[in-house]
Amino acid sequence: MNQIAFHDQIEQRHKRLFAAMSNQGIDALVLNPGPSLVYLTGLHFHLSERPVVTIFTPDKEPLIVLPQLETTKLTGLSFGSRSFSYSDDPDTWLDAFKKAVQAGNIDGRVIGIEPGRLRVLELRYLEKVAPQAHFISAAESLESLRISKDKDEISAMRRAVDIAQNALIATIPSIKLGASEQEIASELTLQLYRAGSEPQLPFFPIVSSGKNTANPHATPSERILQSGDLLVIDWGASYKGYASDITRTFALGLVDEELAYIAEIVLQANEAGRKAASPGVSAASVDKAARDVIEAAGYGDYFIHRTGHGLGMESHEAPYIRSGNLNPLELGMTFTVEPGIYLPDRGGVRIEDDVLITADGSESLTSLQRQLHTINE
Amino acid sequence: MNQIAFHDQIEQRHKRLFAAMSNQGIDALVLNPGPSLVYLTGLHFHLSERPVVTIFTPDKEPLIVLPQLETTKLTGLSFGSRSFSYSDDPDTWLDAFKKAVQAGNIDGRVIGIEPGRLRVLELRYLEKVAPQAHFISAAESLESLRISKDKDEISAMRRAVDIAQNALIATIPSIKLGASEQEIASELTLQLYRAGSEPQLPFFPIVSSGKNTANPHATPSERILQSGDLLVIDWGASYKGYASDITRTFALGLVDEELAYIAEIVLQANEAGRKAASPGVSAASVDKAARDVIEAAGYGDYFIHRTGHGLGMESHEAPYIRSGNLNPLELGMTFTVEPGIYLPDRGGVRIEDDVLITADGSESLTSLQRQLHTINE
Repeated sequence: MNQIAFHDQIEQRHKRLFAAMSNQGIDALVLNPGPSLVYLTGLHFHLSERPVVTIFTPDKEPLIVLPQLETTKLTGLSFGSRSFSYSDDPDTWLDAFKKAVQAGNIDGRVIGIEPGRLRVLELRYLEKVAPQAHFISAAESLESLRISKDKDEISAMRRAVDIAQNALIATIPSIKLGASEQEIASELTLQLYRAGSEPQLPFFPIVSSGKNTANPHATPSERILQSGDLLVIDWGASYKGYASDITRTFALGLVDEELAYIAEIVLQANEAGRKAASPGVSAASVDKAARDVIEAAGYGDYFIHRTGHGLGMESHEAPYIRSGNLNPLELGMTFTVEPGIYLPDRGGVRIEDDVLITADGSESLTSLQRQLHTINE
Repeated sequence: MNQIAFHDQIEQRHKRLFAAMSNQGIDALVLNPGPSLVYLTGLHFHLSERPVVTIFTPDKEPLIVLPQLETTKLTGLSFGSRSFSYSDDPDTWLDAFKKAVQAGNIDGRVIGIEPGRLRVLELRYLEKVAPQAHFISAAESLESLRISKDKDEISAMRRAVDIAQNALIATIPSIKLGASEQEIASELTLQLYRAGSEPQLPFFPIVSSGKNTANPHATPSERILQSGDLLVIDWGASYKGYASDITRTFALGLVDEELAYIAEIVLQANEAGRKAASPGVSAASVDKAARDVIEAAGYGDYFIHRTGHGLGMESHEAPYIRSGNLNPLELGMTFTVEPGIYLPDRGGVRIEDDVLITADGSESLTSLQRQLHTINE
């Protein structure tokens, strides 16, 4: 995107932000570094012990509190801003917050924050310099901005999926008896970078084998692959700040009959979930479509998580595909469909695709074989 | 470390924690996922939209609030714990917090938190279920626990330094005219993994060239290396959860005379800082030793950050090596010495070493050549 197109995009996003804030009764938005800040400004900051906050109000240019050594990052901005910098002496930090809050005239107003991003560190500074302000969650406003992806965003996500799929294909020769979970995870990480992922992976690959597959969020261990193992790989790439998030399950030779059977059930649940996804349909009904298959097979108690989550600049974001979420799916929304069955102390299976809501249904961005992939030695 | 040694280590750390809490008047400690939790439990959780908090009190086993799908992580713990799990429906989350806080009987007490780790998300849940509690920063207690490293920690840090140094050496052939900052950063990242770094790097390499070197926290760009450029590389590896953090500056052929001169000054400042580091000496006096050299040469206004920061499980932690920090350095403390001079719109130089306080002075864990490293084409 060229500089002018980028400028227009940022301007559009600010307009949509202020409309959403107004709907939610929010006078000012205070953001920490993270995806929402990147979406609204293009600015990347590392979250560190030094607080960096940006204050958005409809009638002023963004006000940015940041360390002096970060100020050069603001020189290339495509929009006006005012910065309030501080030195490495923490005693100077409060004053920078004070000046920014005064410039924004936001004490006594309703200040929106992201509860999952803003830390107590920043909150305490804000409370000190805006003691009359009322802090509420702006999650709803920010979700409404980012939940449906535009053409550029979808194209970045397609590329993030391609990179991840190519990385897995390049890793398959390393999946063999005698290799450890950690070795496979390291090789997959290398291949993700080689295939073109950005340095900041959306998350580190989960590689679990044998009994460890019964833990959906296992950390790769030193366990060595054995004949008869299930192997679950959950991985993703990042491209232009957008994530992919895929899971496939492998069999090392012949696996226990019931484990092969649950792989079949999970595959049907994945298909049912993807098929149910369509504009106007609720997130809950996609969850139900997948869950019904697993419950009908008698494994309902072993599907211990939601069917999926939104995917975009964050690897978990709205819409959450779970019972109770009655919000309708809309054109351009992107999320995972990832049913699983986990038999404690025995093993688990998960099959995860990245799905885009289209005008007349949905499309899976992921295309790798979903059946249990048997590795024969 | 075997299971028994690990159990003993955890028990010792809990004892030291409760002593530090008692000194600071803290009745209970609530931790988010992160280094302090790993230090005290060995538990790794990904920070996500689902809150995970652990409550420590001197008279009870740790109480852990977590999603149902993470509970299998608790099976291998070397100490007793009680878990309070919730489902993927956010309406069930408050109840898990409520039960944990009741089990700990901590409402109305002084609750310590980590302001730089705990988010507003977790704080709001805690405030709802412990409305009479008083929340204060436990940063001081946790710093006192972790600031001096034991033998195992130092040996992990030595390995993290070796990995990073080997990765840079393997990357040097890729540093040449025509390569971009991003290409060098990608190659260095690959080499960090190949050399044995854990997946979670302490931070992504900074690779800046030409004018970009005037920004101490530059993000690698598409800029192509040109003859006469300075090139700053700031990188680190992770080993057993411990970080290294090193910076070296390169010259592409012959650079401007003043840029070569500031490289000489920064080298002297780095040496002066390292030489000043010794048990009993204040952090501020290490900063002063390095800063004096740069000020005497007339570049004081262009050294825009502190001289260094502590290094361990976090890439920035106590002790901070800055003016005003009068705390004495002690045996086993580890930190960076990284003076720099940044001439706006022209270029900058930084030389960063990882330093350990020893019985009779200090030792640089890093050993790569510190002089401006000229790459001739």
